[in-house]
Amino acid sequence: MAGGLGFIGARLACRLVTLGAVVTVVDILEPRAGGNAANVAGIRDRATIHIGDIGDDRLLREVLPGCEVVFNLAGQTGHLASMVAPLQDLDANCRAPLALLEACRTLAPRATVVYASTRQVYGRPLSLPVDEGHPVAPVDVNGVHKAAAETYHGLYCEVHGLDTRVLRLTNTYGPGMRVKDSQQNFLGLWLRLALEGRPIDLWGGDQRRDFSYVDDVVQALLLAARVPAGAGRTFNVGGCPPVSLRELADQLLALSGGGGGVTVSPFPQERERIDIGHYYTDDRLFRALTGWTPRTSLAEGLAATLDYYRTALPLYL
Amino acid sequence: MAGGLGFIGARLACRLVTLGAVVTVVDILEPRAGGNAANVAGIRDRATIHIGDIGDDRLLREVLPGCEVVFNLAGQTGHLASMVAPLQDLDANCRAPLALLEACRTLAPRATVVYASTRQVYGRPLSLPVDEGHPVAPVDVNGVHKAAAETYHGLYCEVHGLDTRVLRLTNTYGPGMRVKDSQQNFLGLWLRLALEGRPIDLWGGDQRRDFSYVDDVVQALLLAARVPAGAGRTFNVGGCPPVSLRELADQLLALSGGGGGVTVSPFPQERERIDIGHYYTDDRLFRALTGWTPRTSLAEGLAATLDYYRTALPLYL
Repeated sequence: MAGGLGFIGARLACRLVTLGAVVTVVDILEPRAGGNAANVAGIRDRATIHIGDIGDDRLLREVLPGCEVVFNLAGQTGHLASMVAPLQDLDANCRAPLALLEACRTLAPRATVVYASTRQVYGRPLSLPVDEGHPVAPVDVNGVHKAAAETYHGLYCEVHGLDTRVLRLTNTYGPGMRVKDSQQNFLGLWLRLALEGRPIDLWGGDQRRDFSYVDDVVQALLLAARVPAGAGRTFNVGGCPPVSLRELADQLLALSGGGGGVTVSPFPQERERIDIGHYYTDDRLFRALTGWTPRTSLAEGLAATLDYYRTALPLYL
Repeated sequence: MAGGLGFIGARLACRLVTLGAVVTVVDILEPRAGGNAANVAGIRDRATIHIGDIGDDRLLREVLPGCEVVFNLAGQTGHLASMVAPLQDLDANCRAPLALLEACRTLAPRATVVYASTRQVYGRPLSLPVDEGHPVAPVDVNGVHKAAAETYHGLYCEVHGLDTRVLRLTNTYGPGMRVKDSQQNFLGLWLRLALEGRPIDLWGGDQRRDFSYVDDVVQALLLAARVPAGAGRTFNVGGCPPVSLRELADQLLALSGGGGGVTVSPFPQERERIDIGHYYTDDRLFRALTGWTPRTSLAEGLAATLDYYRTALPLYL
């Protein structure tokens, strides 16, 4: 499990431990990403945890042999950050997964590799909802690099026979997400502001998006590793029915009792240039092949997440 | 000029010097690439030449300010090599152009950046000839990285307002190309074998391809820098009418008087997996916008190239 101290990775690691799997976690705890030791507090004695780089040959030679499934949840998700520091994004989102694939090819050639990609690769949707046939046309460096990393996985299947699978996730939220800023997802920062009684600053607000609760994403990742005829393929995984960001903010404030309210600002120029507008997912292909369906409504998910951070917030600041 | 000691870059540098331009060349002389000091022997006293990395901030701060046009001909072209050493290909074909764009953004924001890409981004053609609307679906790591680098150029235009232009070149040949092996293009090695009277080993042979003589490509690069409304766009640049590799080999042997003949081998498996089959270019868009047309027939180009290497071969081994 790469990125196994991060938001989704750690939740998946915990689930796998509960299911009885032998779990090895590698995470570099990059300060700009989502890694947090608090995310694996519950399994610390039941999983092997390495703080290190998935580009580190020596470490990979230690952990990869014998792996049945390699989940790669490592990476950076910041869109604006990728425009400010594109070479760091290149390292996190191209070099690291490519190095991991190279290592799998030689050290764990029979492993299944599940890679978490993003709806960001589609760029600004030409039609909605977006299915896998939509053109890949990223509008920021992060999207370019995630798209390249997806393609590595397809190539390593086709050329080297590695059993790779790619999921394009949408906005994922839940306990364990980065909330100190909007680096991982703006909703993380909103959760924090709501709990602190500070106003949520909304850019635009009309954009409609879909949101996935982390446990639903974890279930999708587990199914992705086992979907028949999944090798070399890429699947969308969506979330709740789309809501506007204004509706989302209102719902969050109602649940949190947050008195800070909402302020609406025009888009900062550098953010507007890479905004994708409306986005929501058509994931019928993945549902049909796996029977997966999201089980957590937005209201339930937001309530559970707020509940978690009412106690845990200090561990994430 | 990045990659300005390489095959196409050096030819372009020489042409620019002849046209009266002030030319600064940067080249890292990476042994796997095409850089060769012999390529600029004729302009050594009339251009500034730096042996260095286009990822080197200090060097870029020295050479970029004041540049009107930045031609980026740096990179690695080996397809099989990119599968064997993908992280090196990442450095050469993603990190380097991204670092150069970042530097241009701050140090030469009014420069026009012309980037040499490749038909390899299309992968195996779905239809022929291939125009710019054909899906981008690379079949090797080199193609993935060149496609990512193309997208950087589009983004830096759209997001940062940099005047970038991308040309997708096909097989380019001519004086100055790498002939010691097939790392740059198989035709380079064929030229050497023909001159040495050794047999040309043909894989398959039925594949039809188009070939561009280097002076025609140089002319296309010059026009690309000046094409009106070219900012942010990507253009195909093709070559001669398509010929099969067998026809090409026969033509080359007839011109060289080479007694080595042709042997036909089945594709090596690792090469077949990434072969793109037939490919030839539809470049009507670029021709219509610029009036460009290739002026050198395949026979003339091969004859001129053979003529060059009859004397110069030792400088390229």
